[in-house]
Amino acid sequence: MSDSQQTAPFDYIIFGATGDLMMRKLIPALYNQLRVGHVPEEARIIGSARSKLDNEEYRQRAREALNRFLPDAHKDADLIERFLKKIQYIAIDSTKYESNWGGLKEILAQSPDDRIRVFYYSTAPQLFEAISENLHAHGLITKQSRVVLEKPIGTNSETARAINDGVSRFFEEGQIFRIDHYLGKETVQDIIALRFANPLLQAVWSGEYIKSIQITAAETVGVEGRAAYYDTSGALRDMIQNHLLQVLSLCAMEAPSSLEADAIRDAKVNVLKALRPIPEEAVSAETVRAQYVQGTLNGEKVPGYLEELGEESHTETYAAMRAYVDTPRWKNTPFYIRTAKRSAHKLSEVVVTFKEGTSKLFGGTPGADRLVIRLQPNEGFGLSINVKNPSAAGFGLQRTALDGRFAPADGSLIPDSYERLMLDAVRGYPALFIRRDEVEAAWAWVEPTLNAWAADKAPMEHYAAGTYGPEQARQFTAQTGDQWHEDMAD
Amino acid sequence: MSDSQQTAPFDYIIFGATGDLMMRKLIPALYNQLRVGHVPEEARIIGSARSKLDNEEYRQRAREALNRFLPDAHKDADLIERFLKKIQYIAIDSTKYESNWGGLKEILAQSPDDRIRVFYYSTAPQLFEAISENLHAHGLITKQSRVVLEKPIGTNSETARAINDGVSRFFEEGQIFRIDHYLGKETVQDIIALRFANPLLQAVWSGEYIKSIQITAAETVGVEGRAAYYDTSGALRDMIQNHLLQVLSLCAMEAPSSLEADAIRDAKVNVLKALRPIPEEAVSAETVRAQYVQGTLNGEKVPGYLEELGEESHTETYAAMRAYVDTPRWKNTPFYIRTAKRSAHKLSEVVVTFKEGTSKLFGGTPGADRLVIRLQPNEGFGLSINVKNPSAAGFGLQRTALDGRFAPADGSLIPDSYERLMLDAVRGYPALFIRRDEVEAAWAWVEPTLNAWAADKAPMEHYAAGTYGPEQARQFTAQTGDQWHEDMAD
Repeated sequence: MSDSQQTAPFDYIIFGATGDLMMRKLIPALYNQLRVGHVPEEARIIGSARSKLDNEEYRQRAREALNRFLPDAHKDADLIERFLKKIQYIAIDSTKYESNWGGLKEILAQSPDDRIRVFYYSTAPQLFEAISENLHAHGLITKQSRVVLEKPIGTNSETARAINDGVSRFFEEGQIFRIDHYLGKETVQDIIALRFANPLLQAVWSGEYIKSIQITAAETVGVEGRAAYYDTSGALRDMIQNHLLQVLSLCAMEAPSSLEADAIRDAKVNVLKALRPIPEEAVSAETVRAQYVQGTLNGEKVPGYLEELGEESHTETYAAMRAYVDTPRWKNTPFYIRTAKRSAHKLSEVVVTFKEGTSKLFGGTPGADRLVIRLQPNEGFGLSINVKNPSAAGFGLQRTALDGRFAPADGSLIPDSYERLMLDAVRGYPALFIRRDEVEAAWAWVEPTLNAWAADKAPMEHYAAGTYGPEQARQFTAQTGDQWHEDMAD
Repeated sequence: MSDSQQTAPFDYIIFGATGDLMMRKLIPALYNQLRVGHVPEEARIIGSARSKLDNEEYRQRAREALNRFLPDAHKDADLIERFLKKIQYIAIDSTKYESNWGGLKEILAQSPDDRIRVFYYSTAPQLFEAISENLHAHGLITKQSRVVLEKPIGTNSETARAINDGVSRFFEEGQIFRIDHYLGKETVQDIIALRFANPLLQAVWSGEYIKSIQITAAETVGVEGRAAYYDTSGALRDMIQNHLLQVLSLCAMEAPSSLEADAIRDAKVNVLKALRPIPEEAVSAETVRAQYVQGTLNGEKVPGYLEELGEESHTETYAAMRAYVDTPRWKNTPFYIRTAKRSAHKLSEVVVTFKEGTSKLFGGTPGADRLVIRLQPNEGFGLSINVKNPSAAGFGLQRTALDGRFAPADGSLIPDSYERLMLDAVRGYPALFIRRDEVEAAWAWVEPTLNAWAADKAPMEHYAAGTYGPEQARQFTAQTGDQWHEDMAD
């Protein structure tokens, strides 16, 4: 892939176009990509949903969304109007054959036959098959068509397989782009650059030098208004099965043979398949689950999960798992992955702790070498190492942290993950999308844990809102001599 | 060695006590060590030189020196007076047997017989033997005595041997502390900590991963009033034979078996002995020498070396050498060492450039991984690595620099090198002093170059004052595919 290229002309057809994701993410992403010159003049955006709206009414919603969600530095009134002219709206009940598919066909017929056509399903996954079937039945799927599937792809192996089967009746796997917006994050992609463009890091990136890797995605928000929905999902499904296992794959994979999409996805799926199974009977030893109870966040009292939900529940808002990747590179190196709602801080990060080495020269060091990749916020990374303590006689040591930022060289903001992903679908570059075998391997690995938890074969722990998680999570890492990053001295 | 320890009581006897080094460095160093609690109450400082001064006159000079050379943050009027009370002065012509040695004996007799006694020779090296002989003849060298020798130890192998022989007639090697103030620099000692307290760096610290190491000590000052003296020395003798070869030794040595002085010095001398000889006939290929000519520095015109000197000269003000360390760790890894007067910037640094690796994943990287250890100023280090360019589509790369400082944990200033060294002599810890075999191995390696240059077997190049050196130095590094740090893009 060359840098900063404009894409070929495209028609972007988005189902679920009146939804929150469209307004908050997809419209701002396309606008920003126009702003930086990646969207060609001929490109069109066709929003579709059930609501009866005309183009102007829809554009007004889009205008409001841009004003609300764009950073001020990116707002340009003229450009916004130019962008809005690219947008059309068509009301379709996408599950119904007899809906206004003819109208969509008419719009699309205005473009040359070989125009790139991206169908984006920003709808409930139960609709994916029906939309695909209707697109097919009305002859709208061309050779140059791709389909983007929003998460979640199912709630377990079986439902995931059903969704994939349904869509693949009408699209080739090479046309299917399964979104995991974590892969669109620049800092997540940076794991590939850090690992494979720096021989310094490449040399030590194995269980020979690395003691453990922690992957954390923590949020301060609770479930609030979404409690009823969230209770059907939980932390494991919501974050670990997809995002965090993808980050783990990038951290643990062998060097891909190229940057071609399937080379990267082959490397990742090999990690997912090499995850040491956690059978149901081992789940209580190899995982921690918990729910937040009432606590204090930013000085304010916030309610517990069950209070928000208003009923009993066995759904976790915190999940931690210990994973082992059974490849020669990693044998017995623990990967700790965890996610939490109502955590003390909002942050996603990868913490690579190196072994302390066998040199007895200093009679022990103040700490292990440690690389922290901050996925968000403060995108960048820190390297903590041991240096001499200059205040002391002899050779006393102290810690120092080197710090670097992942800032664009031109001073602009780091692009939102949807910007990259939406255009990659146009470009036909699926490296940062999840291949079917990855989805299914990830579900296969988490499924015994899902089952054990559903059957209450592991205790439900509790943590106060505004804390990092339950006390049991500390004991959990201590079993391998590890600590969570927030418990480390630096 | 434990941290931050107070030393045992001592008497510090300094010859050359009216000189510039005493006022500028030694007195402020002892004061600062008193300030931070390393100097015990009973400690005494006895200055000696030929001038007839009484204690009060001498203390007044010391008071003025402290006011002039201490950072304001360290000035404490009460403490200065308490410090000055520790100082006595005695006029001695130290080369004469019949001078006032009895007076010194009387002063020293006031201390217990087993009081640690440090003789510091801050005089011309031609006097070292005579002073030692007179100390011996008057029975002043006790079992608890050490002697600190200021540089330079000779001007070639023969004169170095004569000085060492002269002093060792009266002191055991274990009592002799040869100063190289570079070793007293915290950042130079940090090379040991960085290399051996961080498995991350230890793993890649060899010719397998390192492409080249550059060691630079550059000054903006010219020779000015010191031209006549400097012309008898030159850049190679003044900086490379001692300071820069010491830094090279620390960069290249194997892990010492302990932090005991002789373990470290054994490791260093093994490097000096493994330096691939540069025979006289290879000198023009393996070195660059030059003199500065008139140029501009900080916007001001400054004269050339010959104009300052007022006569023809074959003395270099710039020297660069390519060294190879013939040990299994380094085979054919070039070490570039250079020093310059009237350079564009004042800085001492070690630049470790890593190999670019064999991964073709990115079709080349924007640059090699690089660690820069800033010995001075801005003591600390930078690590330049490749990260993803977030502005681009695909996997374009860009450089980023992580930065860290070697600051004392307590927020204080980095101690001057003499502070550490003067007290280590009291402690009897000679790790940061040069052992006789090191001095002689270093001279043995540079001597063919000295001889070839003296015989004009290599051209004398020229560079404008205020520039980094002669153009020929660029071609010199290019021969191995290297660049000087200032020519690198980042």
